[in-house]
Amino acid sequence: MGKTMEIQLDSAALVTPQLLRRLHATRKRTVSLAKPLSEEDCCVQSMPDASPVKWHMAHTTWFFETFILERFEAGFKPFHPAFRVLFNSYYNGIGEKHPRPQRGLLTRPSTDEVVAYRHNVDTRLGKLLDGLMRDGSVEDSRSAAALVELGVQHEQQHQELILTDLKHLLAQNPLFPAYTPRTDGSAAHAAPLAWQHVDAGVVQIGFDGGGFCFDNELPRHRQFTEAFTLASRLTTNGEYAAFVAEGGYRDPALWLSEGWEWVRGNGLRHPIYWQRENDGARWQEFTLHGLQPLDMQAPLLHISYFEADAYARWAGARLPTEFEWEAAAAREPGLSQLYGTAWQWTSSSYAPYPGFTPADGAIGEYNGKFMVNQYVLRGSSLATPEGHARLSYRNFFPATARWQFSGIRLAK
Amino acid sequence: MGKTMEIQLDSAALVTPQLLRRLHATRKRTVSLAKPLSEEDCCVQSMPDASPVKWHMAHTTWFFETFILERFEAGFKPFHPAFRVLFNSYYNGIGEKHPRPQRGLLTRPSTDEVVAYRHNVDTRLGKLLDGLMRDGSVEDSRSAAALVELGVQHEQQHQELILTDLKHLLAQNPLFPAYTPRTDGSAAHAAPLAWQHVDAGVVQIGFDGGGFCFDNELPRHRQFTEAFTLASRLTTNGEYAAFVAEGGYRDPALWLSEGWEWVRGNGLRHPIYWQRENDGARWQEFTLHGLQPLDMQAPLLHISYFEADAYARWAGARLPTEFEWEAAAAREPGLSQLYGTAWQWTSSSYAPYPGFTPADGAIGEYNGKFMVNQYVLRGSSLATPEGHARLSYRNFFPATARWQFSGIRLAK
Amino acid sequence: MGKTMEIQLDSAALVTPQLLRRLHATRKRTVSLAKPLSEEDCCVQSMPDASPVKWHMAHTTWFFETFILERFEAGFKPFHPAFRVLFNSYYNGIGEKHPRPQRGLLTRPSTDEVVAYRHNVDTRLGKLLDGLMRDGSVEDSRSAAALVELGVQHEQQHQELILTDLKHLLAQNPLFPAYTPRTDGSAAHAAPLAWQHVDAGVVQIGFDGGGFCFDNELPRHRQFTEAFTLASRLTTNGEYAAFVAEGGYRDPALWLSEGWEWVRGNGLRHPIYWQRENDGARWQEFTLHGLQPLDMQAPLLHISYFEADAYARWAGARLPTEFEWEAAAAREPGLSQLYGTAWQWTSSSYAPYPGFTPADGAIGEYNGKFMVNQYVLRGSSLATPEGHARLSYRNFFPATARWQFSGIRLAK
Amino acid sequence: MGKTMEIQLDSAALVTPQLLRRLHATRKRTVSLAKPLSEEDCCVQSMPDASPVKWHMAHTTWFFETFILERFEAGFKPFHPAFRVLFNSYYNGIGEKHPRPQRGLLTRPSTDEVVAYRHNVDTRLGKLLDGLMRDGSVEDSRSAAALVELGVQHEQQHQELILTDLKHLLAQNPLFPAYTPRTDGSAAHAAPLAWQHVDAGVVQIGFDGGGFCFDNELPRHRQFTEAFTLASRLTTNGEYAAFVAEGGYRDPALWLSEGWEWVRGNGLRHPIYWQRENDGARWQEFTLHGLQPLDMQAPLLHISYFEADAYARWAGARLPTEFEWEAAAAREPGLSQLYGTAWQWTSSSYAPYPGFTPADGAIGEYNGKFMVNQYVLRGSSLATPEGHARLSYRNFFPATARWQFSGIRLAK
Repeated sequence: MGKTMEIQLDSAALVTPQLLRRLHATRKRTVSLAKPLSEEDCCVQSMPDASPVKWHMAHTTWFFETFILERFEAGFKPFHPAFRVLFNSYYNGIGEKHPRPQRGLLTRPSTDEVVAYRHNVDTRLGKLLDGLMRDGSVEDSRSAAALVELGVQHEQQHQELILTDLKHLLAQNPLFPAYTPRTDGSAAHAAPLAWQHVDAGVVQIGFDGGGFCFDNELPRHRQFTEAFTLASRLTTNGEYAAFVAEGGYRDPALWLSEGWEWVRGNGLRHPIYWQRENDGARWQEFTLHGLQPLDMQAPLLHISYFEADAYARWAGARLPTEFEWEAAAAREPGLSQLYGTAWQWTSSSYAPYPGFTPADGAIGEYNGKFMVNQYVLRGSSLATPEGHARLSYRNFFPATARWQFSGIRLAK
Repeated sequence: MGKTMEIQLDSAALVTPQLLRRLHATRKRTVSLAKPLSEEDCCVQSMPDASPVKWHMAHTTWFFETFILERFEAGFKPFHPAFRVLFNSYYNGIGEKHPRPQRGLLTRPSTDEVVAYRHNVDTRLGKLLDGLMRDGSVEDSRSAAALVELGVQHEQQHQELILTDLKHLLAQNPLFPAYTPRTDGSAAHAAPLAWQHVDAGVVQIGFDGGGFCFDNELPRHRQFTEAFTLASRLTTNGEYAAFVAEGGYRDPALWLSEGWEWVRGNGLRHPIYWQRENDGARWQEFTLHGLQPLDMQAPLLHISYFEADAYARWAGARLPTEFEWEAAAAREPGLSQLYGTAWQWTSSSYAPYPGFTPADGAIGEYNGKFMVNQYVLRGSSLATPEGHARLSYRNFFPATARWQFSGIRLAK
Repeated sequence: MGKTMEIQLDSAALVTPQLLRRLHATRKRTVSLAKPLSEEDCCVQSMPDASPVKWHMAHTTWFFETFILERFEAGFKPFHPAFRVLFNSYYNGIGEKHPRPQRGLLTRPSTDEVVAYRHNVDTRLGKLLDGLMRDGSVEDSRSAAALVELGVQHEQQHQELILTDLKHLLAQNPLFPAYTPRTDGSAAHAAPLAWQHVDAGVVQIGFDGGGFCFDNELPRHRQFTEAFTLASRLTTNGEYAAFVAEGGYRDPALWLSEGWEWVRGNGLRHPIYWQRENDGARWQEFTLHGLQPLDMQAPLLHISYFEADAYARWAGARLPTEFEWEAAAAREPGLSQLYGTAWQWTSSSYAPYPGFTPADGAIGEYNGKFMVNQYVLRGSSLATPEGHARLSYRNFFPATARWQFSGIRLAK
Repeated sequence: MGKTMEIQLDSAALVTPQLLRRLHATRKRTVSLAKPLSEEDCCVQSMPDASPVKWHMAHTTWFFETFILERFEAGFKPFHPAFRVLFNSYYNGIGEKHPRPQRGLLTRPSTDEVVAYRHNVDTRLGKLLDGLMRDGSVEDSRSAAALVELGVQHEQQHQELILTDLKHLLAQNPLFPAYTPRTDGSAAHAAPLAWQHVDAGVVQIGFDGGGFCFDNELPRHRQFTEAFTLASRLTTNGEYAAFVAEGGYRDPALWLSEGWEWVRGNGLRHPIYWQRENDGARWQEFTLHGLQPLDMQAPLLHISYFEADAYARWAGARLPTEFEWEAAAAREPGLSQLYGTAWQWTSSSYAPYPGFTPADGAIGEYNGKFMVNQYVLRGSSLATPEGHARLSYRNFFPATARWQFSGIRLAK
């Protein structure tokens, strides 16, 4: 997610006022996410895997400028020639790109200039799409609508990354600053863990029906899953704290060999945002509301694949495959927290579905390029924008990624 | 392969004269593999992923000493206390182990001492097994037979690694020394490439029937494969040379993103053992017979997953999944070079089969420990010992591994 | 420079209105250096060796708060407890410090808060020193005066680093932003290069006379220098461009062995801030006024020791020792550009003078700690604050440091 | 030492029978050093800084072949064309060289072949030099004599390195094998430490008189040394053990800043060849006779510059400059262990003497190339061949080098 741009552009939908409203709302939400932040917060990059908020704001704008305005706008001229390199993420077909680990060195353009860039592109885009609605060809309207939809989905992905990357940045600061104040004082309450059984059989996997999907969700195809059971809810902080307390990070028998090297090489002893209170007796957790006591009933977050796998082994269970997850989520009641809580690691390596075909040209250039040494996560997280999640959605990250809003749903 | 020791020990077979003959033949073959080598050839380690020949000779002996003699021999005393650490590979349950990258620093014990170690253990093992045949309990005889079988299989794996690692070592030497002289002067002749079709359906995957298998081949279970076609033979050097000549190593569009970084970061331009002749016009290949002209009709060898995947994309095809490979190999005539030529990369990440259960104790300790960020290879290679290959065998290596006897069978 | 805090605190001077004016002017100048910069410019760190402008502003304030207010102010309370860690640079005696490579992650405190920190400390410091002037003991007044002097010198060092580090940051940006507009349109004109002869003899080296010096300039002692000649002026861009044009970066015979590895390992072909114009025919140079045509008559800047040494060898000369530099600068007319142009590399490894004694306690804690694998630079640069340079001043950097305002004066 | 080949070739001496005897004895001693070793011991390289014994044997032979036979022998043909690359160490002017970290991968040529190479070159060299004695021109005889002398000195350097590198290799082996059995059972007895005073004054530094020297010992020139005192003997193991016991490796205040990072980064707690006995109570030391109890009265060996410097600070002393060492060693009685015990670190960075001129051509090609970031050691060690040491000899290594036979003589 946020690393690839996989899409089917053969949609039959036209540009409509509804689409424009979605576009407008999405664009507005990105800016509102940055509201509580200073210019400095928006500019700095905490590690090569993360990007600055300002870069996300500019890159999502670059996307609309490059793939829609440049194609459809009469007499197109880029807002700033250098932005084509600075805010290109990976589209080799488009030309040069600025090195990812140096995104945080771009103190110029300023956040204000990036906001101006957003306004400029939004205005021109509005004018262009209005024109297409009034008197554009059906073909142009279809192409533009598909690209707008893609741009909206793309920007939604980056909205989640804005929160993810920002959280990582703020966590590096010994002052542990809050992004927003905590408003909800109520503690979580975890339901008892139950196991949902699914019989063996051939299941249909992949996107089905109308609307948007990324091309890694296609084609819809068949898989056979042997009988399995899936946990009714996500693993809680309290359950994981027991694993930590009982030496989970010190026992090589619980870890994949490569995971154990990673744990030892980095001296890991607990999840990335956990820390002991001063007296050492209790856990605290860094959150977007600053340091908070660890809520033992709340779902565990920010866990790597290696940690999820080790925990599952310790718990006498395992991680589900992505096919098991999708089959159960499609059919079974009794599963809670499928969406909107935490991305759920599966044991499935990210791979193409049978018959997978990448789209043509620049947008499809990197389709499937990440299908190696990454693991699929399913569901969605509390940081995923409203309306972005769906049953067939495939998120993916390397086994060491800890800074995502990722959690654990066990299987047996 | 060679990195894990996965076995089912519940065999019902007893110690028999036939088993002893297999043991003896296997042990003898290991020593004969080292015959053409000097002590120096046997001692040096060319990279952390490879081990010295002497280490392989000692480690396979350590296996029998530790898992059979120590358990069954009355008044057991180790041949040398330090060898328990020096020649332990990864069995944490057995105790400390010598760091893998430093195996090549062990100029002592000498090759002669290791040969003496082999003789000593072989003699004691023969005596022990003779005794078990004569007057051992059924239970002991079964256990010992299963462990001998495992030790034989284990040693066979290391026989392939001896050739693999030795080839890598000799290739580092600008003198390009030959392991053995070339005796066969006949050139290869590749059959025309045909495509075998397999219908969609549920297939049985995993080991079936009697005899030995590793536990990663179990349990036998069902998979669904959509219709596919598989290449009738392996990719040849000539076919791959066309990929190289047409800029295969210079076009990022052909590579997985991580593969492209690997290619650029290491400045790769051709397979590991290829090099240009002095005039630059023709390819040579380093072989166990020294530098040889590249045989364009012969099967391509020593290719990484990244290279195999890029070649397949360039050729308008893809790599098969391991289930496709096994399903086709089980049912279809028309496939040549399944075994005894080159391990064949599949697009399947190495993962446990549904219901997989690791064995207990030290031998099973690391079962499944490598099931992350590795890709499955099927079939077997020209370096695989006679009788070691089978339909359900799962070899596995990381996507960057180039020094194995690995090749390409395309799918569509 | 900027990395050590070496001082003699046994001055007999008292706190005076003149000292307060110097303090005030120095503190004011730091803030004015940041005037042309945005908050983002002040926050970002371009490499581990450089620090953000905001950090320099806070650290110099921390110095006064920690070493003067904490000692002399009745009822002292730190402005912010966390700042004691965040803005400590290396004084282990004072407690923990924030890791240097992570200084750029501190988006909080904001630049505004740091300016408020400066105002707060300045106000309290003014009040304290006024009180000491009116009715402090002679002992307290002397101690405080020495510490104020040290704080002023320390802040002057950081003023140079602000410009040095900022230049490096802006140079990473493909927009090549200017810190200030270029006002001076006149081109430089280099005088002909002459050689000043100095006879062999015993010379006095080290600080002599009243006023402030760092303790690495003491004790004054004797050295013997054989007869030598020193270049009357610094090497120009044009002279160095000839070295580049004639293959200076491609000939290993010109470089120290370690320097050659550094050149090859980093693919270096010219000084850090040079680049070819688009047509490749002419050099441009990144400056604090943005990209500018390279002025061939102007003194060469931003050169490492390795580059300086290679150039000298190519030019049939060598770098002077620091004793030669000081002896010539002390006695000889005929030398221009000694101060205020570029720090001048010497061939002298940074080492203690005979009889060197570090000061006691936190301020002296790290005295001499950097006296290994660094080379001495003499003189001062155009970025050195007025009044900070002197004959015996010893700046020092590792042989690879390129981002300082450093140049070349040849010797024979 | 062993890394550079600095020489003055303008000697007036001719080829004489005495010279031939020295040559013969030196060549013979190299082979005898390898006598107690197996082929494996001779082949393996324990780290990039060290070379295999076999490589030393071949490289010293390559030297005579390349610089003498190739120049003087009629119809010269190299023993093996590939050896010119394999056993070239750094002479760029001679052509390509094999990468240093891969010297240990050369299992071919075998040790026997290298011995044959030695015999071949020795025989041809003997014949050539005999001829020159009989009827060579004075000019040829002088040139050849100078080169033979250089080759002898060069081989002596490598004789010390053979022992140094071999000790490092054997120490990596958990069996701790002995190179030779211990014959001398007598314990050392350290004399009381006294301090020799030297008055301030101008001293003569550098080689003086006839015979051989390396060019880094020239020109003889003047230095001024302030008054100082020098320890009458080297630091003992017992004295250093007190430093270790009192937390020397845990107190950053004792270390240079870069040294402290090195200690922490490598987790160092004692000298490289020390280890605790099983009960933890006593120190053992790995020696060429295997593991031995640490002799507290014996001189400390195998210490880095950083360790020497930290110890000196802890002991309230410092390391001498190389000029102080040479001045004291030239004039003062009362100093023991100057030669034949341990190389003695000085605080002097390795730098050219005033007026230093490298020799011309390949032999001089790398003269002075190492004169950066290295520190000078004076005296000689127990591994230095008889007759190789002299007052003006300058050995040098980086501040982290621990595996040399290096020790500490304090100064004040």
